[in-house]
Amino acid sequence: MADKVTPISGFQEWLPAERIVEQHFLDTLRAVFELHGFASVNTRAVETVDRLAGNGEDADKEIYGVRRLADAGGQAEFGLHFDLTVPFARYVLENAGKLNFPFRRYQIQPAWRGERPQRLRYREFTQADIDIVDVGELPFHYEVELPLAVADAFSRLPVPAFRIHVNNRKIPEGFYRGLGISDVTAVLRIVDKLDKLPAAAVGSMLVEAGLTAAQAEQCLALAQINSVDDGFVERVRVLGVTHPTLDEGLAQLKAVMDAAAEHAPGLLFADLMIARGLDYYTGTVYEIRLLDQPEGTPSVGGGGRYDALASDGKRTYPGVGISIGVSRLLGLLIGEQGLTASRETPVCVLVAVTDEQTRPESMRVAAALRARGIPTLVAPKAAKFGKQIQFADRRGIPFVWFPAAAGVGTPGEGAAGEGAAGEGAAGESSDQVKAASGAQTGDQVKDIRTGEQVPADRATWLPADPTDLHPTLSPKRQ
Amino acid sequence: MADKVTPISGFQEWLPAERIVEQHFLDTLRAVFELHGFASVNTRAVETVDRLAGNGEDADKEIYGVRRLADAGGQAEFGLHFDLTVPFARYVLENAGKLNFPFRRYQIQPAWRGERPQRLRYREFTQADIDIVDVGELPFHYEVELPLAVADAFSRLPVPAFRIHVNNRKIPEGFYRGLGISDVTAVLRIVDKLDKLPAAAVGSMLVEAGLTAAQAEQCLALAQINSVDDGFVERVRVLGVTHPTLDEGLAQLKAVMDAAAEHAPGLLFADLMIARGLDYYTGTVYEIRLLDQPEGTPSVGGGGRYDALASDGKRTYPGVGISIGVSRLLGLLIGEQGLTASRETPVCVLVAVTDEQTRPESMRVAAALRARGIPTLVAPKAAKFGKQIQFADRRGIPFVWFPAAAGVGTPGEGAAGEGAAGEGAAGESSDQVKAASGAQTGDQVKDIRTGEQVPADRATWLPADPTDLHPTLSPKRQ
Repeated sequence: MADKVTPISGFQEWLPAERIVEQHFLDTLRAVFELHGFASVNTRAVETVDRLAGNGEDADKEIYGVRRLADAGGQAEFGLHFDLTVPFARYVLENAGKLNFPFRRYQIQPAWRGERPQRLRYREFTQADIDIVDVGELPFHYEVELPLAVADAFSRLPVPAFRIHVNNRKIPEGFYRGLGISDVTAVLRIVDKLDKLPAAAVGSMLVEAGLTAAQAEQCLALAQINSVDDGFVERVRVLGVTHPTLDEGLAQLKAVMDAAAEHAPGLLFADLMIARGLDYYTGTVYEIRLLDQPEGTPSVGGGGRYDALASDGKRTYPGVGISIGVSRLLGLLIGEQGLTASRETPVCVLVAVTDEQTRPESMRVAAALRARGIPTLVAPKAAKFGKQIQFADRRGIPFVWFPAAAGVGTPGEGAAGEGAAGEGAAGESSDQVKAASGAQTGDQVKDIRTGEQVPADRATWLPADPTDLHPTLSPKRQ
Repeated sequence: MADKVTPISGFQEWLPAERIVEQHFLDTLRAVFELHGFASVNTRAVETVDRLAGNGEDADKEIYGVRRLADAGGQAEFGLHFDLTVPFARYVLENAGKLNFPFRRYQIQPAWRGERPQRLRYREFTQADIDIVDVGELPFHYEVELPLAVADAFSRLPVPAFRIHVNNRKIPEGFYRGLGISDVTAVLRIVDKLDKLPAAAVGSMLVEAGLTAAQAEQCLALAQINSVDDGFVERVRVLGVTHPTLDEGLAQLKAVMDAAAEHAPGLLFADLMIARGLDYYTGTVYEIRLLDQPEGTPSVGGGGRYDALASDGKRTYPGVGISIGVSRLLGLLIGEQGLTASRETPVCVLVAVTDEQTRPESMRVAAALRARGIPTLVAPKAAKFGKQIQFADRRGIPFVWFPAAAGVGTPGEGAAGEGAAGEGAAGESSDQVKAASGAQTGDQVKDIRTGEQVPADRATWLPADPTDLHPTLSPKRQ
């Protein structure tokens, strides 16, 4: 298979050090979701085309169909899922009799959309979703709880400054009704354009749609209200509109903001302009936005409360969920900002090989260290020790272990401080290492960053700094 | 989306408790691979059809093509990968300038084949691969090392008795050449039928292919040699055939077996009948077999040494790899043998809610426990305590926490031992729980399996048995 290889646009892959960053993000999301009581679900990559089509707003044309190459002609039976909500809804219906409700699940998997790749928009992308679904009715308090789990996860990750913008659908709905507007969705759809058009233009569209100038003005005024706390309530009240649904929406959003003030201070932002999935959400809606990013940086997650995730005709499954765009977040952090790992390999210790005859002894050292949880590698060749140190240095492996080998001199302190130097220096120092043998006969370990080399017991040794055991994140590209 | 849902044949999905088993397997494989110095690589799900086609023996017709539904007509440009070797080879070529060789990677991902689903053979299946690739040349010792990593991983998992069967291609090749046979591959291909046909039938086929009866007999005799240690060497020598390639093969297989005797006693099995990937492997070959399983149970992994994983025309990348069929293993253990988890949720503690007004206090308890790594859930409703205990019991959650709530009686010892009982009893005991309040005002925690209820401090409490913190594997279906 000798041929040229070029990346496929919209399909992001990471180098090993970058992948360690991705793993750290996925591990942290998983750990926090589990701390908050979500169980893992993993669904197949494909759904029937029938199920996929019609379930995503304008997504039909982006669905990747899947069909055996051998089955030429005809229609694709399957498609790759374009989100994790459609497969989860199907999973809930398929396993309803075996799940305990309310059912809390997290799901971290790739999804695929055949759209034109753009900055931070991929054709294959990893999503991390949490949802709570119940049968028939879902208590409101889950709408309070859900964003706290996301805030908890993000607060443990090296993400840039962010805020979770929150609104409640009942606020514009009740407000519009209080103003005497009947077609709530049509008005929402126009007001939703405020993030792209100036307020005056949106106001004109509202008037064209049949609102009075006063109604239009009120709608725009509502959408422009936001606050870091529950201050939005008073600002809505000042507009003088009353309706029971408005009252309910304000009380619910206030409950979300009050809980956030205690459990995730500063991370939630009441923003009455947030709409999202107009045909879908019925209560609280969320949108995760990064602050201080370049113009056009998309949101890195969102979700909301929906009254019907799925229905089997007899029962309806309402829920609330948030989806985090992991690929988008990592595309920004790794791809654009250079976030990387302290090393490109899990290896903490490289065990040197004195000569090929004593490789079994080096393997014994490695087995002893691994048995105590220390990622360990045996050197590929019985090269000069300087070369072996260089091998570790190139990969960011912090420690090189020199086994005591009968009849073979162990490297002494003479080489300390030189092993981690550049190629030439390492090559030179290897002779010194071999020359400075004999004084000690036990195992020794060298921290190649400092050059410090000390006697060590393979049965008890651990890195002095426990963070050396595994790669850590590093904000700068190396 | 009200409709009937039926599973898709060949696409296995797990229920939450089963998924916990799967996660345990994937976590253990990953942890052990990292201990052995392998770095994680994750590749996109698709490759170009050109790259996939012609790279898998007879796999072409099983490839799933991927094309946007909107792009009707024409040929699929992409296909889903059918293993992790083809994408890894492409990744190595694409990133050769950025990788440090020898490069050790593990890759745990799904793959897809459009074959007819059978027992333990799926259309979507998860593989866990480890490979070591180098540029130009790859030292033999990696062939010794690689199966030890797999043996280490399996020895930490609740897999049934297994053995890694090992052979070396140089043994039959050298042996055949020593017998004067020139078309080695043709003979190998016939001898490989020994696992399906009786020896006499295979012998006849060898004679039909041009071998003398004596040559055929020797070939069959060689293939039937196996040993748990290096005893195979003597048994081959007794056959009286000599050739330098045979010597090399015997020495290499002996080195593999000797290392295994030390690091993985009893887990490797020298088996001179193992062939695998006839056009592909050039040295050691591996096949992981479960013992004492029903007839027809396929191997759960395999691999070997290959001289050209990939080539860019100038450089060739030899390697050695083993692939573990995770879905197959779990299909057997979970699907057929009922391996499951001790509970269906990560939750260790359910925090009871005394009434909806004090839900914020229950959320505070949950936050305090989560901050110390204890997966915690707040009860969905301020139902009678008996109902809340029942909620935990149904999900296997071991502990229920009763927050001290100002003005609300905390449950006393009177209810101990009754909470975990059946529905009726739990309903009754809830009244007793409420009645027995007042004596204590601090938080209390109940182990609902024993009924024991004790005062507890949310800032310091941990389960007495640390294994209660997370679900554990359970051999019996619950």
